[in-house]
Amino acid sequence: MQICKTPVDLQALKAQNIGFVPTMGALHAGHLSLIERARAENDFVIVSIFVNPTQFGANEDFSTYPHPLEKDLELCAKAGVGAVFTPQADSLYPFKEAISLNPPKDLLGFEADLRPGHFNGVLQVVLKLFNLVRPTKAYFGQKDAQQLLIIQRMVQDLFLPVEIVPCPILRDFDGLALSSRNVYLSPEQRQLALKIPKALNTIHEAYKAGITQGTNLLALGQEILSPLEVQYLSLVNRQLIPLEHIEPNNSLILVAVRVGTTRLLDNLWL
Amino acid sequence: MQICKTPVDLQALKAQNIGFVPTMGALHAGHLSLIERARAENDFVIVSIFVNPTQFGANEDFSTYPHPLEKDLELCAKAGVGAVFTPQADSLYPFKEAISLNPPKDLLGFEADLRPGHFNGVLQVVLKLFNLVRPTKAYFGQKDAQQLLIIQRMVQDLFLPVEIVPCPILRDFDGLALSSRNVYLSPEQRQLALKIPKALNTIHEAYKAGITQGTNLLALGQEILSPLEVQYLSLVNRQLIPLEHIEPNNSLILVAVRVGTTRLLDNLWL
Repeated sequence: MQICKTPVDLQALKAQNIGFVPTMGALHAGHLSLIERARAENDFVIVSIFVNPTQFGANEDFSTYPHPLEKDLELCAKAGVGAVFTPQADSLYPFKEAISLNPPKDLLGFEADLRPGHFNGVLQVVLKLFNLVRPTKAYFGQKDAQQLLIIQRMVQDLFLPVEIVPCPILRDFDGLALSSRNVYLSPEQRQLALKIPKALNTIHEAYKAGITQGTNLLALGQEILSPLEVQYLSLVNRQLIPLEHIEPNNSLILVAVRVGTTRLLDNLWL
Repeated sequence: MQICKTPVDLQALKAQNIGFVPTMGALHAGHLSLIERARAENDFVIVSIFVNPTQFGANEDFSTYPHPLEKDLELCAKAGVGAVFTPQADSLYPFKEAISLNPPKDLLGFEADLRPGHFNGVLQVVLKLFNLVRPTKAYFGQKDAQQLLIIQRMVQDLFLPVEIVPCPILRDFDGLALSSRNVYLSPEQRQLALKIPKALNTIHEAYKAGITQGTNLLALGQEILSPLEVQYLSLVNRQLIPLEHIEPNNSLILVAVRVGTTRLLDNLWL
């Protein structure tokens, strides 16, 4: 496995079909499932590990975000990754004044309201990474649902020559959606956090039993989540437009909850 | 010569080394010099003809910008162009809410002050075109000096896999820098406009005679331009930072003048 520390190292790589898995490191089984899928569908897999400063707000966890680089590199090597890209911030942002991108206004709200500027930073770094890696396919988890929709839109709107492959959420043994931020949770907080998958599961079961009205489904979720701090729990379509009723294969239940100082996202694609 | 009217037509093209000349049509000898250079340096030349709405301000000449498409296509065919891309606006901007780009703050001022939002639109369309055409090299005139610097910065900052080739200004028989907007000038206005190349020429001669101080050089230019409405006449380096003295091979004299309702740009690379 090659380790590319700079854009120049990366640009020197030559490969036919590149499957790309952009990450912020602190890899878990969710990331490994993206890597596995990328391996199955491409000749060569590149994983980037970069905690992108421009997508963090001033009061967010940029400085405390976990950086277990050695362990991440081992996991990548075992998973059959061809090259890992581990740039420093100044090599990805070579200019004092950077070119920035504005996400499409119709896909804002939700995370964009709670994390102003977050998606501007996400688009900026993903565009740079796509231009450097030039992947055939790039793999993103459905857990960051809004991010996935905004990146898919960027690819379509800017005509980027890459196929975005959405990958299902992976869950821990207890049902909590895998996230690098789960390590922030105390055992007590983790117990509370389990209300999130329980709420989504209850909504899913109710839907399968024939309940399709958003207010009814969301009320079930709200009751289970109580007394957690729910930042949003919403039914929208895949263009993030609020729905009154589930539209099969075009619906999303989005949830964000704060447990202590940790924000946890989860969702259900219906 | 192929005519590609949609992104899909264009994406179907296969060519090894593509030289790309993005234009807004109304082609003149300046454009043809870019095409000629592109032909000399690449296997296949693509010219785009698209009057990009997002780079025009509300009170600018978008609706009156010349569109001699048949003549342009003839000129391209004669010049050995491989394919011309003539998209409609809705095919380049498929979404109601677009992803937009912000130019780097240190390269603003000048045209950015006089045409707010102009370079946002330029970067947006150029990035889309680069992604669609995927050129090896792209050719831009030095006449739009600030545009050239901002596009070069975008390529570097976003790691776009294209080489930008700056091409010298072409001038008409009387010295006026070629521009599609010169057709707006009445014969009297054109006579007045000739003060612009005369001013730059005088500055150039003075520099060659040993004058290097910006205030002295610009004063010569100002005197010749008087009584025209000079929007700016400045000495800057190639990072658009004001200079007190000419720095050889890193200097630019930028001038913008309004003659009637027509804005005319010209410049000198020293």
